[in-house]
Amino acid sequence: MREQGVEFFFGETVAALEPDQAGRVARVVTDRRTLDADLVILAAGVAPNADLARDTGLDIGESGGILVNECLQTSDPNIFAGGDCAEVANLVTGGPGYFPLGSMANRQGRVIGTNLSRKAALDRGAGMARFRGAVGTWCVKLFQRAAAGAGLSAQAALDRGMDVLNVHMVQLDRAHFYPEKDLMSLDLVVERGSGRVLGIQGLSGNGDALLARINPVAALLQHGAPTVEDVSTLEVAYSPPFAAAMDVVNALGNAAENLLAGRMRNVEAGDFERLWQADEVTVLDCRAAVQGGAMAEKHPGRWLSIPQDELRERLPEVPRDKPLVLVCNTGVRSFESQIVLDAAGLGRSLNLAGGMAALGRAGVDVGQE
Amino acid sequence: MREQGVEFFFGETVAALEPDQAGRVARVVTDRRTLDADLVILAAGVAPNADLARDTGLDIGESGGILVNECLQTSDPNIFAGGDCAEVANLVTGGPGYFPLGSMANRQGRVIGTNLSRKAALDRGAGMARFRGAVGTWCVKLFQRAAAGAGLSAQAALDRGMDVLNVHMVQLDRAHFYPEKDLMSLDLVVERGSGRVLGIQGLSGNGDALLARINPVAALLQHGAPTVEDVSTLEVAYSPPFAAAMDVVNALGNAAENLLAGRMRNVEAGDFERLWQADEVTVLDCRAAVQGGAMAEKHPGRWLSIPQDELRERLPEVPRDKPLVLVCNTGVRSFESQIVLDAAGLGRSLNLAGGMAALGRAGVDVGQE
Repeated sequence: MREQGVEFFFGETVAALEPDQAGRVARVVTDRRTLDADLVILAAGVAPNADLARDTGLDIGESGGILVNECLQTSDPNIFAGGDCAEVANLVTGGPGYFPLGSMANRQGRVIGTNLSRKAALDRGAGMARFRGAVGTWCVKLFQRAAAGAGLSAQAALDRGMDVLNVHMVQLDRAHFYPEKDLMSLDLVVERGSGRVLGIQGLSGNGDALLARINPVAALLQHGAPTVEDVSTLEVAYSPPFAAAMDVVNALGNAAENLLAGRMRNVEAGDFERLWQADEVTVLDCRAAVQGGAMAEKHPGRWLSIPQDELRERLPEVPRDKPLVLVCNTGVRSFESQIVLDAAGLGRSLNLAGGMAALGRAGVDVGQE
Repeated sequence: MREQGVEFFFGETVAALEPDQAGRVARVVTDRRTLDADLVILAAGVAPNADLARDTGLDIGESGGILVNECLQTSDPNIFAGGDCAEVANLVTGGPGYFPLGSMANRQGRVIGTNLSRKAALDRGAGMARFRGAVGTWCVKLFQRAAAGAGLSAQAALDRGMDVLNVHMVQLDRAHFYPEKDLMSLDLVVERGSGRVLGIQGLSGNGDALLARINPVAALLQHGAPTVEDVSTLEVAYSPPFAAAMDVVNALGNAAENLLAGRMRNVEAGDFERLWQADEVTVLDCRAAVQGGAMAEKHPGRWLSIPQDELRERLPEVPRDKPLVLVCNTGVRSFESQIVLDAAGLGRSLNLAGGMAALGRAGVDVGQE
């Protein structure tokens, strides 16, 4: 994933950091390649510091954090724990969760403070304040971009043996006619059989706008088991300076519904790269002729340009020998083309999820602008 | 309410718009005053255009919009309606709702499209897509500021005869040490007996950041009857560039809890103005001495400066003759002072909700900077 000189890598292992003659970092060596670097940021995670509790004989959870109940009492009910040393419930999995965040510590601190002041009342049977758990909502600023999420990533769900669908959507974050706007990319992690939403992640140049979509899905995850329909009908505020009339988060839910119902058959950027390099597919470019035609010239016979609104009339030109990958800017018009092809009995096409924008973000190079 | 040359008025009635000699608008005359104006924007609302449906004999709802069921069928099940001409359920009140918004029309359009394509299947008993209703989430850009909300305003709840509490909170929208930040003001509308949240409204220079708080509360309102505890523990994403560790929306929920429990006794800016002008209260300024001292010099005997962290030692200086109004920048430190005074048996104080920032926004002038 390349963004403004910043590179994101997934699934690569760092083997070494190599210095220049002055002893400053100059190169990152991974199991796949060597990269020049001016700056390396190591984000190695956080481990709970629960030694004191362990030595004292308090129960420790699977994460290594101190076990607490909903009142944030440890296994000794006179001792409370919260913050980065404590393990709480993961409200998505129902299992243990570890979320070392200052916001979490603050909310837990209020519950503990309330319960300490009510402890005498509790001993007479009165109610205590409760912290039910968390879904792991997070955000981070990466130079000029922001990433955020809530709940499980696709990988975390796969690691738990779940059958998941990862739905990818790239769309403008506000009305297309509004002067200031940015592409926002969102991923929805859905359990295939139930249609239950397990998590959401996103990337955008505008972190506040990203959180206006991540936070409401996090709210749904906190309260019950939301379905893709809940995301499709999520009532986010609309006005052209802040959102599109069919907002990116609703479009994400709609795409998930279409995928689950079999109305949309997607291919992810990475899988497309493999199919393209193995020459196993023909690309049908559904964008305007000026964009699609330029790519068709670069890849004669392998990349075909038929704008979406001309497809019904030009069906005879559609090649039948290889499976088709349908592409457009963000994957919306190409999905419309897939519906047209399906209705014409040409049901072997795959829709490039996120379109050309997703190719760029995944670092897939097919000679595009 | 004054913001960067823009004035907001509530509870005033426009009597006339007066022109200059060239016939352009020059003055707005209300029932309280006359204001010079360069530009007047009339926002008179939207009425449903349901004449065709009425003439056809379809049922019309209380709002004047076409009555539909959850499948968006009119009283003739072969005719569907959605968008600005239709009345849907208000998920907060359970009664009729009218929400003329492009986003609403889009979501309803998808449901109607799905149901039209399934109509044949429906006639054989298969399922239809549903639109359950809406909570009225909205946002608007007002020059350099944004306003947004969801659910009922305090006035709308009062008009329905409900016993409501309006909780006002002004706080920085991100970490206090982050260079770019803005004050965000939020109001939570709470039913007093049940602690049920009925709505939220807010104002900020950063509309995206405002929606990162309004949208998740809207999500809660869409699904069940949220309580102030749900807002207090709402898991919004935290990182210093985007939120405070005790975020403004959680602080709003905490304040609501404190008010409902009687731990916090507030006075709103407008009520404070009346008490101040009638000389019925003494102000205790809980800010740093440099801020509070300047105000004390302007209003000798009426405005007293005791910084919050000195209050315990300086209790003998607290005047006992009149009720106290406690003020600070945003109403947080003054609440801490209220707790100290209560513990000392001085229980007649009121906390200025939103602090000096709220005075500025409400246009209350007590000679502050």
